[in-house]
Amino acid sequence: MTASRDLKELSETEALRRLASVPFGRVVFTRHALPAVRPVNHLVVDGQVVIRSNPGTVLSREVAPAAAVVAFEADELDPYERLGWSVIVTGVARLVEDPEEVARFKELLHPWVQGGMDQVIRIRPEFVNGFELVPVDAAS
Amino acid sequence: MTASRDLKELSETEALRRLASVPFGRVVFTRHALPAVRPVNHLVVDGQVVIRSNPGTVLSREVAPAAAVVAFEADELDPYERLGWSVIVTGVARLVEDPEEVARFKELLHPWVQGGMDQVIRIRPEFVNGFELVPVDAAS
Repeated sequence: MTASRDLKELSETEALRRLASVPFGRVVFTRHALPAVRPVNHLVVDGQVVIRSNPGTVLSREVAPAAAVVAFEADELDPYERLGWSVIVTGVARLVEDPEEVARFKELLHPWVQGGMDQVIRIRPEFVNGFELVPVDAAS
Repeated sequence: MTASRDLKELSETEALRRLASVPFGRVVFTRHALPAVRPVNHLVVDGQVVIRSNPGTVLSREVAPAAAVVAFEADELDPYERLGWSVIVTGVARLVEDPEEVARFKELLHPWVQGGMDQVIRIRPEFVNGFELVPVDAAS
């Protein structure tokens, strides 16, 4: 049996640095009153998480201005060594509507899946939680 | 720029098989009326996802019988090749309360993090969604 680990909390700065260091994460939202989650590639720009989505997936078509509270999670976890980290940000997701900003983000962020993904969404973190799995001795 | 991919839907059987083939995923739930997500190791037993959690995290302490609608996501995605798969199940999470079942699952499923994680939770999938990223030509 592999040894258990302790959790070491990451500072907000370090958590956002790690989130920016990986190409994709998982956006967590509510859809038809059910918890929903989708893997998606992302950028961290000016401390905000930028993703692309199909209209009506993360942000409902009906809400104007389009905004919703979401979470975004990314991790690098090694299940064999049981080491690694995870970062979760929670905040308001808003549709980017300024045409110049939309164009800039579409230039920087290419969806993995062809077709659609025409909404550019910006998530402003209100809470940033990051932790690292560390050997039990190292945490004390 | 890396080529875009098509999404190929996985059958429910294949999706559950892949979910069972990896040691951890991410449970998605609602906490304090906010979307929440935690990486956690899991088992698939008799078509249900079994996880362990600290009391009050995934299932509120106040709800009796303790149950909530949650999602559980696992993936194996290669960001460089843009290939891989993701499976998302949505269903009711219930506390396992039968002492023999609790003992059996605790024997089979060891939390990565030491201490606590004393709740054993069973998620019965109501919806199973799985997809695979495939080269554009292969999907047509």
